[in-house]
Amino acid sequence: MIKKRYLLTPGPTPIPPEVNLLMAEPILHHRSPQFQEILRKVLEGIKRVLKTKNDVLIFASSGTGAMEAVVANLVSPQEKVIVIRGGKFGERWAEICATYGAKVIPIDVPWGKAVEAEEVERSLDTTDSVKAVFATLCETSTGTVTDIRRLAETTRKKEVLLVVDAISGLCADNLETDNWGVDVVVAGSQKGLMLPPGLAFVSMSKKAWALSKHTSSSYYFDFKKYQHLLSKPDTPFTPPISLIIGLERALSLIEEEGLENVLSRHRYLANAVREGIKAMGLELFSTCPSNALTAVISPSGISSTELIRIMRDKFGIWIANGQGKMKGKIFRIAHLGYMDRFDVIVALSALEMSLREMGYKIELGKGVGTAERILGGENAQG
Amino acid sequence: MIKKRYLLTPGPTPIPPEVNLLMAEPILHHRSPQFQEILRKVLEGIKRVLKTKNDVLIFASSGTGAMEAVVANLVSPQEKVIVIRGGKFGERWAEICATYGAKVIPIDVPWGKAVEAEEVERSLDTTDSVKAVFATLCETSTGTVTDIRRLAETTRKKEVLLVVDAISGLCADNLETDNWGVDVVVAGSQKGLMLPPGLAFVSMSKKAWALSKHTSSSYYFDFKKYQHLLSKPDTPFTPPISLIIGLERALSLIEEEGLENVLSRHRYLANAVREGIKAMGLELFSTCPSNALTAVISPSGISSTELIRIMRDKFGIWIANGQGKMKGKIFRIAHLGYMDRFDVIVALSALEMSLREMGYKIELGKGVGTAERILGGENAQG
Repeated sequence: MIKKRYLLTPGPTPIPPEVNLLMAEPILHHRSPQFQEILRKVLEGIKRVLKTKNDVLIFASSGTGAMEAVVANLVSPQEKVIVIRGGKFGERWAEICATYGAKVIPIDVPWGKAVEAEEVERSLDTTDSVKAVFATLCETSTGTVTDIRRLAETTRKKEVLLVVDAISGLCADNLETDNWGVDVVVAGSQKGLMLPPGLAFVSMSKKAWALSKHTSSSYYFDFKKYQHLLSKPDTPFTPPISLIIGLERALSLIEEEGLENVLSRHRYLANAVREGIKAMGLELFSTCPSNALTAVISPSGISSTELIRIMRDKFGIWIANGQGKMKGKIFRIAHLGYMDRFDVIVALSALEMSLREMGYKIELGKGVGTAERILGGENAQG
Repeated sequence: MIKKRYLLTPGPTPIPPEVNLLMAEPILHHRSPQFQEILRKVLEGIKRVLKTKNDVLIFASSGTGAMEAVVANLVSPQEKVIVIRGGKFGERWAEICATYGAKVIPIDVPWGKAVEAEEVERSLDTTDSVKAVFATLCETSTGTVTDIRRLAETTRKKEVLLVVDAISGLCADNLETDNWGVDVVVAGSQKGLMLPPGLAFVSMSKKAWALSKHTSSSYYFDFKKYQHLLSKPDTPFTPPISLIIGLERALSLIEEEGLENVLSRHRYLANAVREGIKAMGLELFSTCPSNALTAVISPSGISSTELIRIMRDKFGIWIANGQGKMKGKIFRIAHLGYMDRFDVIVALSALEMSLREMGYKIELGKGVGTAERILGGENAQG
């Protein structure tokens, strides 16, 4: 039986064929006016996606590399930072900050719940000289979105930076970097930007530059090396040329669709998945679900580890297991990036067949039919 | 709203990515040992798919080109031929034979029905010196399969050739060229062989060679030009090099899956589509449906022309309208070539949403759920 590969994981995500084709063209040299022109366009485009006029730095790294870059350039040993820990990626901020000697003040949030902004406010009010609050737009491990606007309302009035990991949330959950006043945003290529992994981005507000260390604890990730090249598009080290060429095309695809339409498509697909999931009698893991992915509680007696194995090996559908302590207990379906309504249909259909195979009582077609009611609707003309 | 393109037409059919990638490699020169080795493998492989040890000729043409080639090399003006006309492609045999001056004895079969072998027998018994019977394995315009084995039982005992257009049926509907005794088989690249259009194939039995005209009414399609090169793989004219390179890979994919598994996959997907269609309250057009595609009667008040427009323009799903006199009255969903079970799910889901949009009363998810019952079954491990 032919099994095509349907990639429905929260990164990497599928690549549009036109982007893949462009990246397969003969490679350019990066120290050339041709490449610098592409880089210039990419820097403009990524700013529009981040909704910012701030400086944006581009790194040849995974998203985690750019997270580390931020800490290495902002946080000095012994400085206090507040870290919202509601999942694996909140924990990662804390681990990186600890690696650089910061005093981490964690705000622990039960997995699947969003942080209460009041708790962050209380922590800021009762702690002197906090350098930054580290938050996560979409906590990928739990499928939870954080109310970044609300957090920014607090931080922008104070001498404290708001640093947001928007790696998996960008393009799916709205983020208004400038309007809301988010100081530092980290993004990656292999999510809503519809590219392979390998590029990461950091946007830095004026306040962020002003409060940065001015010395970097890292050579490769030293912001100064990237910053002084902002006026003349260039990179301090060899950039992932083909990825940047692909990014130019991916950004045009986003512009052609319109960023607000991209966001509403994600909202719409996410809604269809959630309603389909509930119609199957399943429960969402997150009380504040992101539009990038849907985390679902594996029903009693069903191991999500076994479920994702059947989905992948029998049906060719790649979804994600729970991470860390939720491994085996939840599963996560992404609807992120280059996705249309039939990616949702395929995911729900495979889930129905897989759950039935595992003995879960399910009316086949019910989840799909519920999603169809949304996906076939008039608003779907988009 | 992003709309990916889902190609579910009975030719062209989707191309496996590995085949597309191979065809994008730098082109070879065809007068070279490297290309001749590929051609040799392709000639062996295509024989296995046609289940024949007969000579197979390869043409740079559409399937119709190879149909014409057969007539130009087999049929002399004034010779009598029986043509089974149960749809557009049966009619095409008659038109080509008429073009070459043959006396066409048509056996007209109502569209959507299969020919009765007895009728062919009667026609052969009551007509002197018939040169050939022209049949169609899968009549694409109606989605009907012909019982070629039964026809061959009649022709192989007589001094008459059985010529079969297997263009859309190959790999979907079983065809045992040698076991059944089929003299001439025509095939094309853009169907079950999972390639773009541009290549066509003719297999010729010893009996076919013996009864052929030995002169061709066509220069380009003169079998002698192709025949004397069978011993040393080469082509009389410039071949579509990249398509032949792609064919080598496509044939290996078929060998890896196993030809009998390919056939049973088609049977299985076709069955799921048919049951899904019936669960929606729709009626199949053919009483003897092919495994390559399913023709469905558009329900009362629903124009299939409008239906396929909505499927394509709103949902990105490309299916086929009826042809000729059935345009607007039936629609045709292919499950042919590089297809897995989620192609079926996507087709049925889009059909449910489109019919509902057109006011047809339908329980969303019912057709999909019915198909899931088959596609999720134990036999589906394949």
